[in-house]
Formats: sequence, structure tokens, C-alpha cells
Amino acid sequence: MPHFSKPPQDKALLDEATVFTPRFDDKGLITAVVIDVRDNAVLMLAHMNAEALSLTLETGFAHYYSRSRNAIWKKGDTSGNLQKVEQVVTDCDQDAVLLKVSMTGHAAACHTGRRSCFYRAVTTENGAAALASIDDDRAFDPETVYGK
Amino acid sequence: MPHFSKPPQDKALLDEATVFTPRFDDKGLITAVVIDVRDNAVLMLAHMNAEALSLTLETGFAHYYSRSRNAIWKKGDTSGNLQKVEQVVTDCDQDAVLLKVSMTGHAAACHTGRRSCFYRAVTTENGAAALASIDDDRAFDPETVYGK
Repeated sequence: MPHFSKPPQDKALLDEATVFTPRFDDKGLITAVVIDVRDNAVLMLAHMNAEALSLTLETGFAHYYSRSRNAIWKKGDTSGNLQKVEQVVTDCDQDAVLLKVSMTGHAAACHTGRRSCFYRAVTTENGAAALASIDDDRAFDPETVYGK
Repeated sequence: MPHFSKPPQDKALLDEATVFTPRFDDKGLITAVVIDVRDNAVLMLAHMNAEALSLTLETGFAHYYSRSRNAIWKKGDTSGNLQKVEQVVTDCDQDAVLLKVSMTGHAAACHTGRRSCFYRAVTTENGAAALASIDDDRAFDPETVYGK
């Protein structure tokens, strides 16, 4: 399983580094942005601890860390919507990763059955922030897939 | 300036809500994923507190919260690479926002001069995680723009 070295103390060194030293936060987590390799659509955002990141790099399938359940989960284990990782990219200060994935199953990332978790636009009217759906298509029925 | 109501205690209500009740974390922050409206390319990841999110929605230009400087910053104020926000989208559990932006200036989001902060792919060899550049183009010279 890949091992990660500690980040350098001088953050300026991170920009051009050729060694991957992910900067986990004070809870040991890094943010993962997940996009569909077909068209760059943003599918979801999740968190990884070092073990989830290692498992992702080792197996080629996305693994995340659930903050509510305090556990590693392999994306799609229940729904069948696995995420095959085609490329992992990190950012300038190495505190986030971008996963370019191909989905199996229903090709949907969201637990609501939608392709992407980002399906509502924010609008503001008279000082109130509202949401308007931009995607009502469901690739699967959550009740059938996850049960009641 | 838009005001945000508190999220409901029952998280299941967030999925289909038509009211935007962003779930700021224990530090009062929400994650923002920023993409180029032209081709969905992921440009950067940043954080917002309630004020930065309000300013973004009110002015139509991206404002973030710097955790290292403990201050709101308007993206591009120094470099000229402002981010005009074409759409704000939130995810199922409302703890992240996706900004679709048009950039002004050099059309680059990264302080290194590159279009995107995500310019290095992670590779693993013999259990070590290395980085390989996938974008060496610089839209501007950081030393000229930010000074030494």
C-alpha cells in the first residue's frame, strides 16, 4: 500500500514538488473532488484519510472516509455504482485531490439516484437564498437500491 | 446581503429542500469547488465562511475565506484574475458549493500562473507516491504579478 511522507515545513516547496506529500487536516482528512472522465462533470465531493487514499491508489477504485460513520467505504459497494479511478490529480498546496472516474452500475454518484450530487442551483431573491433543481433525472430508485 | 437560515436537524430533509441552508463546519466554513464555465475544467478548491458566501452571491464575484490569513479575500484582487460567478450549485447535503465561473485577466486561477491548481498527476511506483506535471503552461509570471 502506498506510503505518504510528511509534507515539508516550508509550504512554498509544495508547488513544484515531484513527491506527493498530501496535507491531511487536523482530523487527518483530505478533500476529494470527483469528476466524470467523459465530460469533466463534477459528480460529488468526499473526504479521505490516509488509508482511503492509499486504498484508492492501490486498487484503482475510489474509497472514502465517512465522517458520520467514522469508517472507510468503497464507493458503490451497496449501489453498484463503483468509481474506477482513471487519474488522481493534486493541487498546488497538496491539500486536495481530483479524481477522474468512470462509473459502473447506473453511472450515478448521488444517493438520491441522480448522476451528480450537485443538482440544485442557488438563487437569491429579496435577501433569501433558495434552491432550484437543475437535474430531476434519476438513474436509480434509492428505495430499491438502499432499502427503506 | 443574503441571509442563511439554520439547516434542519433531520439531514434527510436537505436532499429535496428548496431553501438553501448551507451546512458550515465546526470552523464555520463550507468547501467551494470552482470550475470554468467554458468546459467544466476544475480550477481550484477553496473555503468560504457565511460572509464570503454572501458576498459571492450578492456581488457575483467569487470571495473566499483564507484559513492561513483569517480573512475574506476577493479572488483576483491582486492578480486581476477575478472570477465572475455564472452559477452557484449546492450538493445533496448542502455542505459544499460548486461555482461555475468566467475568469477575467489572464484566465488563470492558480497562484503559480497556471490555469488550474490541479496540474500534477499522482503516480505510484514501488510503494512511493510521486507527482508528474500535466500542465506546464503559465498564463502569467507569478513574480511579476505578486512580486517577490
